[in-house]
Amino acid sequence: MLKQGKMDFFVTFNNVNLTYFTGFSGATALLIPKQGEGTLYVSAVNYEQAKTETKGLAVDLLKRGENLMQKIAAKTAPNKLAVDSLSIESWRSLAKAVGGEEKLETAGNLIRELRSVKDQDEVKLIREACNLAEIGMQMAFETVKPGVTERRVAAEVEYAMRKKGADGTSFDTIIASGISSAFPHGSCTNRTIHQGDLVVVDLGATYQSYRSDMTRTFTAGKSTEKQMKIYETVKVAQQKAFKAISPNISAAQVDGAARRAIEAAGFGEFFVHNLGHGVGLEIHEAPILSPDSKDTLAAGNVVTDEPGIYLPGYGGVRIEDTVLITSNGAERLTTGYYSLETLR
Amino acid sequence: MLKQGKMDFFVTFNNVNLTYFTGFSGATALLIPKQGEGTLYVSAVNYEQAKTETKGLAVDLLKRGENLMQKIAAKTAPNKLAVDSLSIESWRSLAKAVGGEEKLETAGNLIRELRSVKDQDEVKLIREACNLAEIGMQMAFETVKPGVTERRVAAEVEYAMRKKGADGTSFDTIIASGISSAFPHGSCTNRTIHQGDLVVVDLGATYQSYRSDMTRTFTAGKSTEKQMKIYETVKVAQQKAFKAISPNISAAQVDGAARRAIEAAGFGEFFVHNLGHGVGLEIHEAPILSPDSKDTLAAGNVVTDEPGIYLPGYGGVRIEDTVLITSNGAERLTTGYYSLETLR
Repeated sequence: MLKQGKMDFFVTFNNVNLTYFTGFSGATALLIPKQGEGTLYVSAVNYEQAKTETKGLAVDLLKRGENLMQKIAAKTAPNKLAVDSLSIESWRSLAKAVGGEEKLETAGNLIRELRSVKDQDEVKLIREACNLAEIGMQMAFETVKPGVTERRVAAEVEYAMRKKGADGTSFDTIIASGISSAFPHGSCTNRTIHQGDLVVVDLGATYQSYRSDMTRTFTAGKSTEKQMKIYETVKVAQQKAFKAISPNISAAQVDGAARRAIEAAGFGEFFVHNLGHGVGLEIHEAPILSPDSKDTLAAGNVVTDEPGIYLPGYGGVRIEDTVLITSNGAERLTTGYYSLETLR
Repeated sequence: MLKQGKMDFFVTFNNVNLTYFTGFSGATALLIPKQGEGTLYVSAVNYEQAKTETKGLAVDLLKRGENLMQKIAAKTAPNKLAVDSLSIESWRSLAKAVGGEEKLETAGNLIRELRSVKDQDEVKLIREACNLAEIGMQMAFETVKPGVTERRVAAEVEYAMRKKGADGTSFDTIIASGISSAFPHGSCTNRTIHQGDLVVVDLGATYQSYRSDMTRTFTAGKSTEKQMKIYETVKVAQQKAFKAISPNISAAQVDGAARRAIEAAGFGEFFVHNLGHGVGLEIHEAPILSPDSKDTLAAGNVVTDEPGIYLPGYGGVRIEDTVLITSNGAERLTTGYYSLETLR
């Protein structure tokens, strides 16, 4: 990017981008010059750890009272500087230090694109995060039943993933039962699961900073015909989207494959969110799979395929896998438990 | 704030501030006028949940393709608008919609101040989060021993808190053993704890969006004299800071009370971080307790008191409590386990 001559220096302040470039999450900023060694700015609290855990970078101690923006300007002026993301206050402070806004440009989208295509090492970590999610889902499959609270299911799921090597959850576990399953982000409360409830289980594990995302919907007890009809509609939509996924297809087209299936069954207005999103160091990153997405899929993308139907006051169903886009198609990194009914 | 006449409208985009004002975390923005009803902007995915879980606000559905900044401008122009925090890109987009940067001002600090003083309901939730942290610490006290991995301790700690009602951890649990205990943010790996290791256990629980923060340091096995000397120094420093805490004292002065004690024992250069920080909806918020802090403590603040000594290549000790500042002093909301040696 820098070698294409568009800019002389790039500086990242974003914590996730810092992890992406250095493998270390405790730095304050990273300055990358067109040529030569990068500089990692780290405050005293993380300085010793940064020196131990990073390679090929100059680690610069940011002392109490030192002005980071002035330190950066001292290294870059009078050249132009690209930044990934900044608050308006920090932007102004950096602009002042480097001699004006005209010395700065935003380059957040470049990093978004870089991060959206995973290399083999990243895929390996996401694959492990997905294996851990499946372990969590098995536990949900075994524990979702009438009389158990949502929070208890989450406790068992997270404990199972943690014991097998998860560094934590990749987002707050959703165990949404009964009418709260009609909220796509319905959370996880002390509510007791009742006979006949739909229960949306949306979970993920973090493994060495990389994440997974998986949803299944179960019924606590025998399913009704209406529940089964909704479930089958979502399942077909999820499968149609999966079959549509391949490199060079527009993300909007993949969203459309699922959306049309749900519309054809008469539930179109109840599929109230995008089909999916990229997954990596963040649980939501590029590309976006939505009706108005401008993204085109590429080999190395890792995305979710997660259609849902949500009937207010009744309940909802969502089925989600994390999917790797390969050179000639797609591979589900999460599988199993494609059944509405759990052990009882 | 608005009534003081400084601004006509305030808009928040920050997720934590949205939770603070509405109790709901799934909104995109909240527009508060000087008079009358606020407007909560929510996309379709969270719309039904927002209508159910918020009160006293107009919930406005943000449809696909609609421009949020233009919707806000339509309600506020030609008046001035204060915002809490925005990226440079969003700031520019909002400035364009409202007719220029001169119509905007940043007011993030006002919300920072508001949030730093907790009301009784907030204190109740933080108190419960602290009780849950103590449950986690008890589990750490019971499980830290030679032969157990750091990650296994974290798994047991988190499971114990979750079962008792935690909504999750308030940050990634730190179980840092052996030489990695010398890293203040030393993480939690598959490393097996060895006989004689110092083990820093830094944990917290989230309860209804509010957080707790607590650290203890244990030895796996009998402590050495050097370990005990470091431990006692940190313990004395933590106590001195606690005694210094009261309303109207400068935060820098409280930091100084602990720092002087550590310096007097000859470990000054190894206390490489601030004494503490506010805790609430975020794990790090106002006020800041550091040598260069400009904050003055006030009744209703909830802060950490967490001195530490970190010897590179050897190990570290930190002791931390979450502390409520009361009208005439301070109350520790986390207590217990002030002992270097665990059960073995």
